[in-house]
Amino acid sequence: MGEEVSNKQVILRDFVTGFPKESDFHVRTSSICLKLPQSSKNGVLVNNLFLSCDPYMRILMFQAYVPFPIDSFTPGSVIYGYGVARVLESRDPNLKEGDLVWGVTGWEEYSVIEETQKLFKIEHLDVPLSYYTGILGMPGVTAYFGFYDVCCPKKGESVFVSAASGAVGQLVGQFAKLLGCYVVGSAGTQPKIELLKNKFGFDDAFNYKEEPNLDAALKRYFPKGIDIYFENVGGKMLDAVLGNMSIHGRIAVCGMISQYNLENTEGVHNLMNIVLQRIRMQGFECFDYYHRYSEFLDAVLPLIRAGKLSYVEDIADGLNAGPAALVGLFSGRNVGKQVVAVAAQSCI
Amino acid sequence: MGEEVSNKQVILRDFVTGFPKESDFHVRTSSICLKLPQSSKNGVLVNNLFLSCDPYMRILMFQAYVPFPIDSFTPGSVIYGYGVARVLESRDPNLKEGDLVWGVTGWEEYSVIEETQKLFKIEHLDVPLSYYTGILGMPGVTAYFGFYDVCCPKKGESVFVSAASGAVGQLVGQFAKLLGCYVVGSAGTQPKIELLKNKFGFDDAFNYKEEPNLDAALKRYFPKGIDIYFENVGGKMLDAVLGNMSIHGRIAVCGMISQYNLENTEGVHNLMNIVLQRIRMQGFECFDYYHRYSEFLDAVLPLIRAGKLSYVEDIADGLNAGPAALVGLFSGRNVGKQVVAVAAQSCI
Repeated sequence: MGEEVSNKQVILRDFVTGFPKESDFHVRTSSICLKLPQSSKNGVLVNNLFLSCDPYMRILMFQAYVPFPIDSFTPGSVIYGYGVARVLESRDPNLKEGDLVWGVTGWEEYSVIEETQKLFKIEHLDVPLSYYTGILGMPGVTAYFGFYDVCCPKKGESVFVSAASGAVGQLVGQFAKLLGCYVVGSAGTQPKIELLKNKFGFDDAFNYKEEPNLDAALKRYFPKGIDIYFENVGGKMLDAVLGNMSIHGRIAVCGMISQYNLENTEGVHNLMNIVLQRIRMQGFECFDYYHRYSEFLDAVLPLIRAGKLSYVEDIADGLNAGPAALVGLFSGRNVGKQVVAVAAQSCI
Repeated sequence: MGEEVSNKQVILRDFVTGFPKESDFHVRTSSICLKLPQSSKNGVLVNNLFLSCDPYMRILMFQAYVPFPIDSFTPGSVIYGYGVARVLESRDPNLKEGDLVWGVTGWEEYSVIEETQKLFKIEHLDVPLSYYTGILGMPGVTAYFGFYDVCCPKKGESVFVSAASGAVGQLVGQFAKLLGCYVVGSAGTQPKIELLKNKFGFDDAFNYKEEPNLDAALKRYFPKGIDIYFENVGGKMLDAVLGNMSIHGRIAVCGMISQYNLENTEGVHNLMNIVLQRIRMQGFECFDYYHRYSEFLDAVLPLIRAGKLSYVEDIADGLNAGPAALVGLFSGRNVGKQVVAVAAQSCI
């Protein structure tokens, strides 16, 4: 028998309609025996260190079935998502006590993970550990393959990124600049706009909330049209972009955060431009690229080490701050990648 | 000076809003001197034999600028579109009197064509000449490359084609069957449904006008989802299809005929499925494939000769019947590819 310890957990109260609120969750303290249960075959017991707040998690709060490679949350149970954790005990021969991993884990202090084949062992520790929830984790893989593979970018092309200061957007913009593209981003506050222009080196950026006419805004920044649109928001912005794409333009559809909380999604009207401009609109998910993670690391780690790639994180301290951090994504409260440090950061 | 002859012409009265009507056009008889004007550099004088009625022509009737490789019509002037013609006089060294060509020409008996580099010389005359407005012309190129190049089809995949008995759809369905796909088509009348099943060998077909719930209809025919959608109609059908695509499904967007006559296009709501199912939605136009016309002919001519590919045409007799034939496309009056025989067919 292992030691019995308290285990703080974030619980979903019930399925969510509309915008998620902090009160849709509660934090409870249960207890856990720090020993893998006998029934676990290849599992690991982990101590969670960082948890990732990602927009896709809204999809897991729906009651209706949504086709997605991660199961929906269960009301009354602990929620889960990407995180960084330390292995305390392992029955997976590829992992041992003390190893650091990233992958899907519970929003709690300690978790038992059975699907260890989906965990990534963290090998490089000369970068902040929290980076494995962001630039070196799921959002990084999403940005890297979404941009290089899905967008098929060429030097000199014009690139538009929405939700551009977010976990994925800030990377897409920087990848595009590194390739020699003209890059404009949109975000929802002035500090984010400053960040895009001054920290991430976007050529320009605008606050979509201050633009009464998105079509006019896009025409101002892209008088010759948009070659590549990295889509994170959907709805009105997508409609405006469709009216401003260049011939043979590409739209990589990463997410549509503006639509997740609407009972009826906004209709998109400008789809005929897909024919007229011969646009390729391609949805993608990180899951299809995880087998190329080492290729990704080989490309991105040197850029981080050389200071050619920045990453801004917004780290909430402690699980108690988790629900507010998570729902804050949908009002754009976070500046940069939203992370939750499970314990106070100084303890890690 | 050449002989002065009468030249019957179809004229657009004014730009069109809403559904085009026969009365938006008039047929007038002017005269033409059967000699290339002195100003013509590399032009040809042709006698038009067959004219093609195609949905894209609706786009040329708008007053507002639409990005399209063919210029909009001019009110008061003769309209134009794809056709088959005989060369009467040529200053293009690649064409001579008596040659047959297909390409963009006027809706009139005789035309002077300056952009002769865009004409295709007809080399194979063992098939009906009218085929060069359809299966061996623009719609054929559209269907062939749209299916093989844009859809990236594999044997055994499930394919859905809308406007399936039309100029393009009937070919897409047959190409898909030849490849060993499961193919279902939609059309708007019972005779068209019979044609799809009995003439073109579709596995199944349904009348979309008799389906109160398109989503339910698609689930009936594609319980495991649609791998490939060849999109000709847009609007509600696209929305229903988006909710029924398989993972990594492909949508080739050829046109959206249901939307061309609407002042406000229908909003499409299910676009988030593009992410969830990692769908590729690709618009395309024949213009991008014309340089591969000989490859297309090499593939399709033997299939026609071997009786492995059928083509149903709906031929209107004489230019006087042209306006009704053209506007009939938008109510689905035509059964198969709508053609106008410029002279009575027996004279050709």
